[in-house]
Amino acid sequence: MNSLIQQMTMVPIAASVVGLIVAAFFYFRVKSLPEGTETMNMIAKYIREGSMTFLMREYKVLAFYSVGVFGLLYIAFRAEGTGLLAGSCFLLGAFLSLFSGFIGMKAATFANVRTTQAAREGSMPNALLTALDGGAVMGLCVAATALLGLGVLYWFMAEDPHLSTSLHSFAVGASSIALFSRIGGGIYTKAADVGSDIAGKVIEGIPEDDPRNPGGIADNVGDNVGDVAGMGADIYESLVAALVAAMAIAMTAKSEYVNSLFTEGQTGEEARFLALTLPIFLSGVGLVVSIVCIFIARTLRQNSPAMVLRLALLVPSIIICVVAFIIMPMIGVSQAVTYALAAGAIGGGLIGLVTEYYTAWGPIERIAEASKTGAGTGIIAGLAVGMESTVVSLFIVAGVGFIANLVMPEGMGLYGIAMGAVGMLAGTAIVMTVDAYGPISDNAGGISEMSKLGPEVRAITDELDSVGNTTAAIGKGFAIGSATLTVLSLFSAFILEVNYVREMSGMPALILRLDDAPILIGLLIGASLPYAVGASTMIAVGKAAQAIIEEIKRQFDEIPGLREGKAEPEGKVIVDIATKAALSQMVLPGSVALLAPVAVGFILGPASLAGMLAGAVAVGASLSLFMANAGGAWDNAKKFIEAGGLEGHPKGSETHKAAVVGDTVGDPFKDTSGPGVAILIKVMSVVSLLIAPLIAKF
Amino acid sequence: MNSLIQQMTMVPIAASVVGLIVAAFFYFRVKSLPEGTETMNMIAKYIREGSMTFLMREYKVLAFYSVGVFGLLYIAFRAEGTGLLAGSCFLLGAFLSLFSGFIGMKAATFANVRTTQAAREGSMPNALLTALDGGAVMGLCVAATALLGLGVLYWFMAEDPHLSTSLHSFAVGASSIALFSRIGGGIYTKAADVGSDIAGKVIEGIPEDDPRNPGGIADNVGDNVGDVAGMGADIYESLVAALVAAMAIAMTAKSEYVNSLFTEGQTGEEARFLALTLPIFLSGVGLVVSIVCIFIARTLRQNSPAMVLRLALLVPSIIICVVAFIIMPMIGVSQAVTYALAAGAIGGGLIGLVTEYYTAWGPIERIAEASKTGAGTGIIAGLAVGMESTVVSLFIVAGVGFIANLVMPEGMGLYGIAMGAVGMLAGTAIVMTVDAYGPISDNAGGISEMSKLGPEVRAITDELDSVGNTTAAIGKGFAIGSATLTVLSLFSAFILEVNYVREMSGMPALILRLDDAPILIGLLIGASLPYAVGASTMIAVGKAAQAIIEEIKRQFDEIPGLREGKAEPEGKVIVDIATKAALSQMVLPGSVALLAPVAVGFILGPASLAGMLAGAVAVGASLSLFMANAGGAWDNAKKFIEAGGLEGHPKGSETHKAAVVGDTVGDPFKDTSGPGVAILIKVMSVVSLLIAPLIAKF
Repeated sequence: MNSLIQQMTMVPIAASVVGLIVAAFFYFRVKSLPEGTETMNMIAKYIREGSMTFLMREYKVLAFYSVGVFGLLYIAFRAEGTGLLAGSCFLLGAFLSLFSGFIGMKAATFANVRTTQAAREGSMPNALLTALDGGAVMGLCVAATALLGLGVLYWFMAEDPHLSTSLHSFAVGASSIALFSRIGGGIYTKAADVGSDIAGKVIEGIPEDDPRNPGGIADNVGDNVGDVAGMGADIYESLVAALVAAMAIAMTAKSEYVNSLFTEGQTGEEARFLALTLPIFLSGVGLVVSIVCIFIARTLRQNSPAMVLRLALLVPSIIICVVAFIIMPMIGVSQAVTYALAAGAIGGGLIGLVTEYYTAWGPIERIAEASKTGAGTGIIAGLAVGMESTVVSLFIVAGVGFIANLVMPEGMGLYGIAMGAVGMLAGTAIVMTVDAYGPISDNAGGISEMSKLGPEVRAITDELDSVGNTTAAIGKGFAIGSATLTVLSLFSAFILEVNYVREMSGMPALILRLDDAPILIGLLIGASLPYAVGASTMIAVGKAAQAIIEEIKRQFDEIPGLREGKAEPEGKVIVDIATKAALSQMVLPGSVALLAPVAVGFILGPASLAGMLAGAVAVGASLSLFMANAGGAWDNAKKFIEAGGLEGHPKGSETHKAAVVGDTVGDPFKDTSGPGVAILIKVMSVVSLLIAPLIAKF
Repeated sequence: MNSLIQQMTMVPIAASVVGLIVAAFFYFRVKSLPEGTETMNMIAKYIREGSMTFLMREYKVLAFYSVGVFGLLYIAFRAEGTGLLAGSCFLLGAFLSLFSGFIGMKAATFANVRTTQAAREGSMPNALLTALDGGAVMGLCVAATALLGLGVLYWFMAEDPHLSTSLHSFAVGASSIALFSRIGGGIYTKAADVGSDIAGKVIEGIPEDDPRNPGGIADNVGDNVGDVAGMGADIYESLVAALVAAMAIAMTAKSEYVNSLFTEGQTGEEARFLALTLPIFLSGVGLVVSIVCIFIARTLRQNSPAMVLRLALLVPSIIICVVAFIIMPMIGVSQAVTYALAAGAIGGGLIGLVTEYYTAWGPIERIAEASKTGAGTGIIAGLAVGMESTVVSLFIVAGVGFIANLVMPEGMGLYGIAMGAVGMLAGTAIVMTVDAYGPISDNAGGISEMSKLGPEVRAITDELDSVGNTTAAIGKGFAIGSATLTVLSLFSAFILEVNYVREMSGMPALILRLDDAPILIGLLIGASLPYAVGASTMIAVGKAAQAIIEEIKRQFDEIPGLREGKAEPEGKVIVDIATKAALSQMVLPGSVALLAPVAVGFILGPASLAGMLAGAVAVGASLSLFMANAGGAWDNAKKFIEAGGLEGHPKGSETHKAAVVGDTVGDPFKDTSGPGVAILIKVMSVVSLLIAPLIAKF
């Protein structure tokens, strides 16, 4: 490595260290804030304990899983002499994910009750700040650990011939944890939500978050394990996968193509190292910008939360592009890289805004209107909204890919697409901060309700929460958009890797023609897999919710005085049911994602595997967008009616009840199956990339 | 053409003529049967007039459209000197589709009331026979006109260098009509169904088909225009597209590959002609077998209708394979063709049985169970069932493709896949007969209810109808499975055609590599289009249903005595609303299907177009299976509850109401959007194949 590259590699490492220090600062700041009344404290403690119990039990499952995969990798790569390396990097990728999830969720479970307390003291700015700081711990941990891990790995391995194996194994570690955290957390949160909602509202006629509802604690735990820990692992994985995809393409692209990226005549190894370093360097820059922006956002806390958070999501991307535009000429890199980065950054923002439009504006009024004639027409309207938004979002992603490909010199189009994904994720730290802010505010509202703190407090937490719903939609836009671009890059990286290995062994390149029968057969298999994950996660939520409903019924029947509010519900029993259900039901969809590429790769060969990935990305990207947006739209249509948006159809009316049905269907759509499908395609691509050398000679 | 090929070409032509004669026989036989009471007659007349009015107005729109396309084709292909040919073949393909739709639907609207009359006379076998004969008119017309058109075209054009243009234009004609008939009919039928259901059951509290419900006539008209005429055009198109795909591959495949299909050393032109003739020859054999089987099924009418119809669907395919196995050695063709044919025929049956399982057995009980806790959980369960069935069905299709590819000699795998589709559609005449039987029985039930004929009559029509639901599911399995295989073949044919044209012009072949950026961008665009059609059709049904609900409300409010059954509802007004809505709303989704390939092909080039088709088939096949099966499952879950399947949850209970919501959502899923998406991918592939020569040199 020459000194420029060393300096560039130091940027992400140094930025990560700063990021972790800032995260620690926020963590202790939040923890030092006042916690409010004893009841609040107790409820918060139940939520924290429930969340931590779930995480610990999940980690136990994951520990077994990781040891198993370590062994498999060790055996699979032993022949290449990289068994221990692959296994260790896998563990590192997995461990860092678990670490950031643990810290981030712990911070969130401190921040929730302290946000309630700030609201109780009547201070909207303080409440906003507490929730934001709590979220920032997760946001910073996620971005910093991903960059630190990859940065350090690259620092030590850059000149090692096994760099690719180490990076890909790291990515598989990140993906595996994301897969199980997202699916397990998603099943938990929606089983608890749907179960306690239906039991509470429909069967027993008490509102959500009512202290008598035995599912209340589990519902709030779900927000933490699903929307904080699960989402964190997901975004961590996205960032890792995008960076690894760009680096993998840089590693295997033809030299003459790589050289064309540089304006100062860098060629050969030097140019390749520069191309390899660029993604993590630019992400490091993004982390620095994000940290600065988090502090700026904090100073703006006197303004409307909606404005602050929207700026926090959209501005950093723009700053990063400007910074890149200034730096690229200084290090002799073609501005094409900046343009690709900018295409991704702007595209991410656009998808976010489109998502917001479909889940918060006119379309939700259409759904509310349609609910006047019943749940059936309301659901039809929501499905149509979800589908429409999918079309627009996919066109934006395709547009980003088109531009990123167009601006790049010949042969580097795929590198451009990968840089587009990196650009979309450059603001990860702040996007994740705002994402984690959502469930913290949601919890804060729940705690205020369960502690019977009165309407003034609830008004503040409700406003914070409703902003969180909108920003969650924008965050999801970034997440699914970047996932799609990342998967396209990973997919190309897989094919490049296969041919790279074949070339090294003196074999002819494998030309994967779109009209080869094995590829078309793979395409159909790939098309089916997102539905497999969708079905199994929907079934899991349905079953677990059913069990929770029955338990809640039992408690109301058997605990004397519960209905009158004179006895305590047994919340822990529900927490236990949800935990067990989530952990056992996450295994099937998780296994599909991990085993499908291995099975198809080794049985049908790399061509069918490539076809499978193509089919899976086409179906997976569209299906997850559809589910996420339809779910978001139903949720907000219900809230729109609750807020009095439809004259003559208040909360509690038949129209409102019809909208609640949409919300119930949307819950697993947007928070379990949709994200599960998105992560499926990422995991399958990463696993394929890792096993590429093993099946290349098929 | 040598004499063997002439004789082989005569088979489909002769079989078609026989088929049309038999159809005429059934048509007049049905028409000659007694029509029952005056009330029955009047209702049947309303239905017939409503259906014919819709068809005529639709045909007017299609006439304008056809003239326009004729002009476009004339201009586009003028440079090649085939402008008039392309335009005329397009018109022929379109006309034959309209012709068979017209005759078939007319027969269905005679058969419905005569089936009711047979039931009124207490004869189940006669009622079954009447409905079956009515359906056979459509079944035979569809298969015979498709084969006659292609057979005659091939007879005259076989040695003409413009054979491919003529066949592809014919297919575009067939596809265009299918597209609009299916989508227009689908919107009509479900708008009327959902609208009158909701208004009748929920708002006014009167049962479906109640004579007081002003939507009753429109609902029954919908069955005819959607499930008879629309479905007929769809299946006609499937058969045409499958045959054209196989022929296109035979035309452009490399000679050495084509030669390897034959055991008696046929080579060169002779071998190619043989390969070209085989698909229509085998389909002709299929038509003969189907005609024989229709007559056998008629003799079995004393048995249970379920058994008769299931055998009618599954047995002909097996006979056709046996016949092929005997004939192939006689004409010197490798048995590989038989095996590919058999893979398709068996696969089609398997998909049908899987579909039946998911829409009629255990899974619907799961949905019914889940409906106990409300519409939300019922819908979640149905979505999961739909997704699960999609996975299984796609695996079967992939398996058929795998086997069809495997058994073929090298280089002819895609021909094998196309022959798999031909095999799946070999029994088209009888499959369509049974398909059309369904809406005839449904209408028969409606007429008996509206004519107040009493429970004994209704018992017979109900049994016929419930069998129709099951066979409809099997029929849909054949339709979507064969569509997927057909699209894969068309897609490959498109790439072969592009390269054939390039080779003729001395240009290098275009290698469509899966990891080229333009292909990946196309993939995303293609992935979005099925959602565009899904969204626009769902919105169309929602809007039109809303308008119908309001009109029904108005009639109940404004017509004195209607509620008490003392005044007649104004059914014609509803028919008019549905007709207008369907015709105006079918334009947008229809245009997407026709224009997307043209736009992408001419703007982004053939590589992106190929990627788009790959994305569209992956998403379209899975999405349409999912929608069709989820819809079917909800429908039958509701019927299961109505039949008393859930103890303590009878018709009218909260659980039943929850299941009705699922049925409402499922209506446009299974009969509008699902089939619309399936036809989208077929139309786009056919259009791409047609324009391949125009964009090949991009």
